[in-house]
Parts: sequence; C-alpha cells; structure tokens
Amino acid sequence: MNKPKAENLTIHIGEVDAPMRASRFGHEGAALWLTGLSGSGKSTVAHRVERLLIERGVHAFVLDGDNIRHGLNADLGFSPEDRKENIRRIAQVARLFVESGAVVLTAFVSPYRADRDSARALLPEGRFIEVFIDTPIEVCEARDPKGLYRKARAGEITNLTGIGAPYEPPLAPELRVDTSAHDLDTAAGLIIDYLESRGIVPAAR
Amino acid sequence: MNKPKAENLTIHIGEVDAPMRASRFGHEGAALWLTGLSGSGKSTVAHRVERLLIERGVHAFVLDGDNIRHGLNADLGFSPEDRKENIRRIAQVARLFVESGAVVLTAFVSPYRADRDSARALLPEGRFIEVFIDTPIEVCEARDPKGLYRKARAGEITNLTGIGAPYEPPLAPELRVDTSAHDLDTAAGLIIDYLESRGIVPAAR
Repeated sequence: MNKPKAENLTIHIGEVDAPMRASRFGHEGAALWLTGLSGSGKSTVAHRVERLLIERGVHAFVLDGDNIRHGLNADLGFSPEDRKENIRRIAQVARLFVESGAVVLTAFVSPYRADRDSARALLPEGRFIEVFIDTPIEVCEARDPKGLYRKARAGEITNLTGIGAPYEPPLAPELRVDTSAHDLDTAAGLIIDYLESRGIVPAAR
Repeated sequence: MNKPKAENLTIHIGEVDAPMRASRFGHEGAALWLTGLSGSGKSTVAHRVERLLIERGVHAFVLDGDNIRHGLNADLGFSPEDRKENIRRIAQVARLFVESGAVVLTAFVSPYRADRDSARALLPEGRFIEVFIDTPIEVCEARDPKGLYRKARAGEITNLTGIGAPYEPPLAPELRVDTSAHDLDTAAGLIIDYLESRGIVPAAR
C-alpha cells in the first residue's frame, strides 16, 4: 500500500512564510488591539490609521462593530458568554490577518483583561500591540456617539461598560492614547510612530 | 443638548474605499472558493496559487482546515448544524479579506450548493469565484491524503463526502480544474489566468 500518512501530507503544505510575505509587501504583519470605553475614539482612530497606512501601500484593515457584529458575529448577543465568544472570534480573525501579512486594527470595547490576554496569546511576541484608548469617561459621555450613556443614565440600559459594568484597564499596554488630548492625526500618528519604531512598517518621509 | 444621532456618527466612518485599496495595492480583492472532494487537490492548488500571487506582490491568503478548524472554528464539530456554521463563518471571514483588498482562497470540501450560494451572496458581483476542483473520485481515493477513504471503506467513518454523504457539484462554477489532468503549476495557472482575464490582478510577463 502506498498510502501516505495523514500527518505527512496534510499539515504544512503552505509554500509561503512570514518573511517572504514581508519581503514582497514591504511591511510586517501585526494586530493593533484598540481597547477603551464607548465614545473613547477607538473606531475613529483605527480608521484614520488605516487610511494613513493604505496611503503608504501597507495592507491595513479595521475590524469593528460595523463589519463584525452584522456579519461573522451576527449570531451572537450580549450575554457574558456571547461577549466572550465575540472577542474570541475577533481575535482569531485578527490572527488570520496577521498571518496574511496585514496590519489589522480591532476597535472593540473589549473590557476584560482575560479576553485581551487570550487574544495576545494567539500571536507571536511583538505582533499583538495593545492600544489603550484612555479617554476620560466624562469626555466619552459628553461625546456619547451612540447615545448609550444617555440611555444608561436614564436606566434604559443597565450594563454599559464604565457605568453599570466594569472596564478593566490594560496594565501594560504597548501604547496609551487619550483622544481628548490630541487631534485625530496626532493620535493616529502616535500609533504609526510605534509601528515604525518596531520595524513593522518602514519609516516614511 | 448637543448629542449627535447614533446613525450619523457611528456608521460609515471608514475613510478608505475599494478603489483606493485597489489603486494602492495594484490589484483588486476577490474570493476564490475552491470546492471538491477530499483528496481532489484543493489545498495544494490553493497554496500554489497563493505563492505565485505573493511573488507578484498580490496580497493572497489561504483559508483551509489547518488555520480555521484549529482556530476560529475549533468550537465546531461535524454535525450538520456545525458544518453549516463552519462554512458560514469561513464565508464571512472571506468577505472581510475581500473588503481588505486581498485575494483570499478557501479550500474546504463545502459539499452543499446552498452553503456555497450563501457565501457567493455575501460578495459583490464578480468577486466570488467558484472553482470546482473536479478530480475524479477514483483519483481522490487513490491519493487518500488523510486516509479518509480507507476508513470509509472499512466502515470506520460513515459520512465521508462522496462515499457516505452527498457532494453537490457546482452547476455553473467560474472555473473547473481537474488536478489529475494537469500538473500543479498548470492547474494553478488556470486560476491565475482567470484572475488576469477579469482584471483582478494585472497580467504578468
């Protein structure tokens, strides 16, 4: 019988490795995991960074509520188990993008350290970059882009992170950005400077 | 009260559109959905196409059992519901890669037309390319890279696609490739020729 063993033929048939991707694309893959309160500016900053990177030819992509909650995770609700599964899947998708050689940005409240640490554990050292969008809650509440703080104060929702549910701030984030202290391009620039300093994207200018 | 409406601020904050990505990356995004029996050559062909595209600087990436079943879909088994959910998630992830401007290749048996059609429906016209890896089952069984046909014939597994479970061949695939009729580079070249003919990647040479 000439039947090959499954272990030999079906694992590691990939012909491309990370250095080959980086060489062809001109940048490394990495995940920028933005975490912070509702209204802190995660999505806005993520999309600005995405645009600035794409203008440089860097394959960047934002995962946020718009493209995840209505698609991959449309089957999930807001129970504790579903919130955990929501973050688990996002982390796994982020890992796939990093493996593809992209710079992926995730913009979710992701309030629990354990969930963020699980995401970090999926990626090689240095490829998970936790960005704490550390905007004061008073500023987030004044912005209230989704009307969630108003609803929480009115008692219409009971589990808003920062009001009725805990937010566990990162203990050692790679970056901390207060969007009330910087304009948008400056905030985005802090993140891009970090990527340059780590050799993930080449320095521009 | 200066509270903006959620609809105005939280939807469509993306700053990048598909033409901008295509312009910067030098190619369009698309999903190549490879379907066929176990042993038909889906993964092998997908990884060769991936390498050839990456050598041209095209952001290509393969989703297959190796990186999906052990990660994103590690929570899923092989019940009919779980198989359906497996393909649903893969399709949603493929959609995200296409939105990012990548050429994503999926290499799963995906035996049911309804599931493949659901995947097609997630993508804009022309961006879902169904590739029927139409290798004769006798060839697949002779290759038997995972030993599944042997187990099926021995009665150790009962629901192998093509033996104990149906495979619904595509009715109108964009491409049909019989890997027993071509060597690997020729098979991969058929797919790349198609991408060139549709303007998804620029013609080489």
